[in-house]
Amino acid sequence: MENESRVVIEAVTPEIDGGRFPIKRTVGEAVVVEADIFADGHDALAGVLRHRREDVPEWTEVPLVHIGNDRWRAAFTVGDIGRFHYTLVAWIDRFASWAQDLAKRVGAGQDVAVNVMIGAGLVEAAARRAGGVDAARLAAYADALRAGGPDAIRVALSDELARLVARHAGRADAAAYGNDLVVVVDRDRARFSAWYEFFPRSCAAEPGRHGTFADCEARLPYVAGMGFDVLYVPPIHPIGRTHRKGKNNADVAGPDDPGSPWAIGAVEGGHTAVHPQLGTLEDFQRLIGSARRHGMEIALDLAFQCSPDHPYVTEHPEWFRRRPDGTIQYAENPPKKYQDIYPLDFETRDWRALWDELCRVVRFWIDQGVRIFRVDNPHTKPFGFWQWLIGEIKREHPDVLFLCEAFTRPKIMYRLAKIGFIQSYTYFAWRNTRYELTDYFTELTQTVVREFYRPHLWPNTPDILTAYLQDGGRPAFAVRLVLAATLGANYGIYGPAFELCENRSAAPGAPPPASEEYLNSEKYEIKHWDLDRPGNLRGLITRVNRIRRDNPALWSDRSLWFHGTDNDALLCYSKQTADRANVIVVVVNLDPHRPQAGWTGLDLGRLGLASDQPYEMHDLLSGARHGWRGASNYVALNPETAPAHIFRIEREARHA
Amino acid sequence: MENESRVVIEAVTPEIDGGRFPIKRTVGEAVVVEADIFADGHDALAGVLRHRREDVPEWTEVPLVHIGNDRWRAAFTVGDIGRFHYTLVAWIDRFASWAQDLAKRVGAGQDVAVNVMIGAGLVEAAARRAGGVDAARLAAYADALRAGGPDAIRVALSDELARLVARHAGRADAAAYGNDLVVVVDRDRARFSAWYEFFPRSCAAEPGRHGTFADCEARLPYVAGMGFDVLYVPPIHPIGRTHRKGKNNADVAGPDDPGSPWAIGAVEGGHTAVHPQLGTLEDFQRLIGSARRHGMEIALDLAFQCSPDHPYVTEHPEWFRRRPDGTIQYAENPPKKYQDIYPLDFETRDWRALWDELCRVVRFWIDQGVRIFRVDNPHTKPFGFWQWLIGEIKREHPDVLFLCEAFTRPKIMYRLAKIGFIQSYTYFAWRNTRYELTDYFTELTQTVVREFYRPHLWPNTPDILTAYLQDGGRPAFAVRLVLAATLGANYGIYGPAFELCENRSAAPGAPPPASEEYLNSEKYEIKHWDLDRPGNLRGLITRVNRIRRDNPALWSDRSLWFHGTDNDALLCYSKQTADRANVIVVVVNLDPHRPQAGWTGLDLGRLGLASDQPYEMHDLLSGARHGWRGASNYVALNPETAPAHIFRIEREARHA
Repeated sequence: MENESRVVIEAVTPEIDGGRFPIKRTVGEAVVVEADIFADGHDALAGVLRHRREDVPEWTEVPLVHIGNDRWRAAFTVGDIGRFHYTLVAWIDRFASWAQDLAKRVGAGQDVAVNVMIGAGLVEAAARRAGGVDAARLAAYADALRAGGPDAIRVALSDELARLVARHAGRADAAAYGNDLVVVVDRDRARFSAWYEFFPRSCAAEPGRHGTFADCEARLPYVAGMGFDVLYVPPIHPIGRTHRKGKNNADVAGPDDPGSPWAIGAVEGGHTAVHPQLGTLEDFQRLIGSARRHGMEIALDLAFQCSPDHPYVTEHPEWFRRRPDGTIQYAENPPKKYQDIYPLDFETRDWRALWDELCRVVRFWIDQGVRIFRVDNPHTKPFGFWQWLIGEIKREHPDVLFLCEAFTRPKIMYRLAKIGFIQSYTYFAWRNTRYELTDYFTELTQTVVREFYRPHLWPNTPDILTAYLQDGGRPAFAVRLVLAATLGANYGIYGPAFELCENRSAAPGAPPPASEEYLNSEKYEIKHWDLDRPGNLRGLITRVNRIRRDNPALWSDRSLWFHGTDNDALLCYSKQTADRANVIVVVVNLDPHRPQAGWTGLDLGRLGLASDQPYEMHDLLSGARHGWRGASNYVALNPETAPAHIFRIEREARHA
Repeated sequence: MENESRVVIEAVTPEIDGGRFPIKRTVGEAVVVEADIFADGHDALAGVLRHRREDVPEWTEVPLVHIGNDRWRAAFTVGDIGRFHYTLVAWIDRFASWAQDLAKRVGAGQDVAVNVMIGAGLVEAAARRAGGVDAARLAAYADALRAGGPDAIRVALSDELARLVARHAGRADAAAYGNDLVVVVDRDRARFSAWYEFFPRSCAAEPGRHGTFADCEARLPYVAGMGFDVLYVPPIHPIGRTHRKGKNNADVAGPDDPGSPWAIGAVEGGHTAVHPQLGTLEDFQRLIGSARRHGMEIALDLAFQCSPDHPYVTEHPEWFRRRPDGTIQYAENPPKKYQDIYPLDFETRDWRALWDELCRVVRFWIDQGVRIFRVDNPHTKPFGFWQWLIGEIKREHPDVLFLCEAFTRPKIMYRLAKIGFIQSYTYFAWRNTRYELTDYFTELTQTVVREFYRPHLWPNTPDILTAYLQDGGRPAFAVRLVLAATLGANYGIYGPAFELCENRSAAPGAPPPASEEYLNSEKYEIKHWDLDRPGNLRGLITRVNRIRRDNPALWSDRSLWFHGTDNDALLCYSKQTADRANVIVVVVNLDPHRPQAGWTGLDLGRLGLASDQPYEMHDLLSGARHGWRGASNYVALNPETAPAHIFRIEREARHA
């Protein structure tokens, strides 16, 4: 028998799995909180959204506003990186209940003398709660009510009195929402970034030589010049010799084959060492500094696995699983075998030491200046490990970002984001049709998923050369570039393969993933790319990245909205800033083989346009300007010349 | 740093608000439980649904089955009334993981000698967990594996071994779902019932006399003859004299006016007393027995409010709120005043005593044999009170049912159901168009709402004479009868007003609720109804209730499904048993003024029909049989003669 508050607070959004996981925001973004709040009877309610930085004990309060059907809303803006908490409190507003009743009685011409006395009592109670000058003012109001007459009614229903009493609301019977909710706030780059991946060893100026960090520095102007702000490099550690893979994933390496960078560890060291042919740790630090001067950050690969030559294998044999014949269990996905890689055994009895060591590895690279990690295959390690590791690191360094490279089942991908990954690879590479793209990106950006999952869009990776790119050639690369860069505020390409439209498969026509391997994959050999190869996409990429930087609408995914077209080969979508000062409309011809034309079916309400309003569409790719009117406008796109429009709706024309 | 289970269990259904509230079932119904279950990596998983009666400490387990996309399912049937618990446990199935890998290796022609040894170790571990004969059998299997060779592989992949190991699965690393979920199981009548409401005082055989419980007994054959199984009577307690209401809610009663039965309490007693003019407590007990012999239960009204003459007012003045002038606060909904009713003050400091007393009232009537309560306006009393009261009573008497009479905002109606009400009134009375009915009943029956909210459909009540009935006359009553009785497994009518098509408003054309008051409302006067009035619906009601009893498809709401028609005036829907042995298709002309015709657009898949299959539609209302084929069939309905079809798809024809 417990007499709880009469007020109910439920159906709070945003909230992930009953408050078990934090939501995500970046600095300056709003957290718009809503809840169903109600009580028995007909009393007026009031409430507040409470929020605070995790390290600040005091709550800041924002009044909740009723938006209809017992739904209430308030918002706060997260001002800096770190963890913030938010929750809700609501109570019966006895003064407002009384005032709204009084107004009805007065309207009905009833004698309200006794009712005004009840109000006087409520005001006196507020006076007792208030201190100082407010107490005196409230006492004076109470006296005015007790004096009665028409003047008392005027006072009773005055806004000043309502505001004054509200400031000292009685919360004795308040309901506090049971969940203390958390928002993890990251820096801007978590929300908006353009990544470029290259293999440092392929950066030498002349063919045949192993590239170095110094060569990477020389390549920075090229990458920064295209407009990228994150340079991601595959593992830079010593590469094992035992069972090293040869060209095209051959079981036996030739004497000069460099091996896969993901076969980490050799006599020269493991996860905190640098591959000698790339240079020294100092060279790497210099690369970080040099990148910074080009407006770029280096993202390092975290691949927690070992070559048979990794120092861990001898120093910590207990971290590997042994087979009954005494050999160490190498990586497998039966019937496939990866003899050049030993997985770490996260179920080892010595798991505490293993976890600590891996955390030490991350701290080591943070100490070198790295603040972004691209995590290789996290879905093959326990969720609990990542939740702990990311939690530890973010507590010490809330500016560190982790990109989750898991291409696995949907619920596992989402779980990894919930437990802490800041950004996540997506299925974008394999979503090609209008239905697929609309369905998937609506799920990512317009459902609860957007509260915890930050999509990172890659049209290709060293492992993923899709059938669409193999089949569609240069126009396909252009289409996928525009889609990645405008559907996703975060996107990246694996270059120079991408901008050179490299699309020869190691196993054409085979089922994926075999067919998605590059012929002469850079994973197993040093490449010398001709960056000026005819037909390269450097100009388009530069232009698209410039458009991204110039248009705040493209800095976030939350406003993504799909519009209709009468041709399934034409995909149309928009992004906009909250104030609609910047509205981008993209139309893409998804067919890399044929020109396609058709009519748009724009959701004008979404774009803030009236149905008969003329407006100007400025194609930021071609520079052309088109006069449009209403929802239905003609579009024709030739994949060979212009596979997409990236329109900005010109503010001036919109008001014309 | 905690090394939790690698297995995740989430997105469990059914579950209300993170497990805070129980779901509802009736005896013999299934609880189909689903969850997302997955782990890192590629191991095989296994798990069980656990369930138990609340008073039985041991769990019963049902294996979970993977149904795709990491979703798992299992079910159990609740065998008797009371509270049951259910939850989930899942673990890495190391033997199955090993066996599935081994099969792939064997398929790829690999040497598996070492792998078979690993399996032997897993089987030996199972043998250690097993007792008795299974231990010995497992040990023998392990020996067979250790012997190696082709025979060992055959043994390794055998179903017998898999089953035997599964029986002794190692759950050391199991994940237990965090929520202990509850299902409240009621008797059948909670799910399927036909209610009839009448005023006992209007049951006298001759005009002008106050009806008695004996008169009610004489009326039972009439009510039971129409096929109703619950008889609900407004409050039977002494009625106050102070501020008693006169005819048509007049402020002053005439000397012979009987007053509103909801103005409870007089010098003769309060909530546990019987109005002397109705008879004695013994007479009421006899009515209960007599009703039982007619296959009916009596539902009593629980209206926790008092007339100014109620004994509580003098015995417990602390249970009422006093105004500054010393008077007791009467019920109000400003500017309306209900001076004949004092609300109880649930915020009294003496709330414990008040709650206990109201619980005593319920127990008192349970002791008289009442097992169903229709609760008047629960939304004007605290949620916490009802949660406690219903919990107490159900603990002692799990067969007791409470019907929630709250016509208020949607979230409050749902909350009352979540906290314990067994059945709930709905907005049915005001849902008239095809869109309104489809939208509302889809929400009630095809979303999570169905797990906690049991709709009870009333086309009229003593307070609700809808505009549709006022305007549509007899055909409107027929339409609403068919809708109520087939859309809702639970439905009721307020008679004899309903079957006599009484539809004169006290304030025609006024806005509701004033216009929804009956002219010469039975709430304020004794009525003498001519049960044989021409045009009455007794025959239709009898037929519809007979159809309900004969067709199990109509005993539940969970299978309700709306089908298309090409005429918005025609509403088409179906209900069916799980095995489709009984499939009912209803087509209703929602227009009470004009004949309407059109073509159905049946969802054949839902009905288990092939697109070209002929089948026979047997109209259980008219007796006619129609040969139909495919989704599109012609229907014409005349509101004057036959406003609806209630078809049964004939099993024989379906297989023709």
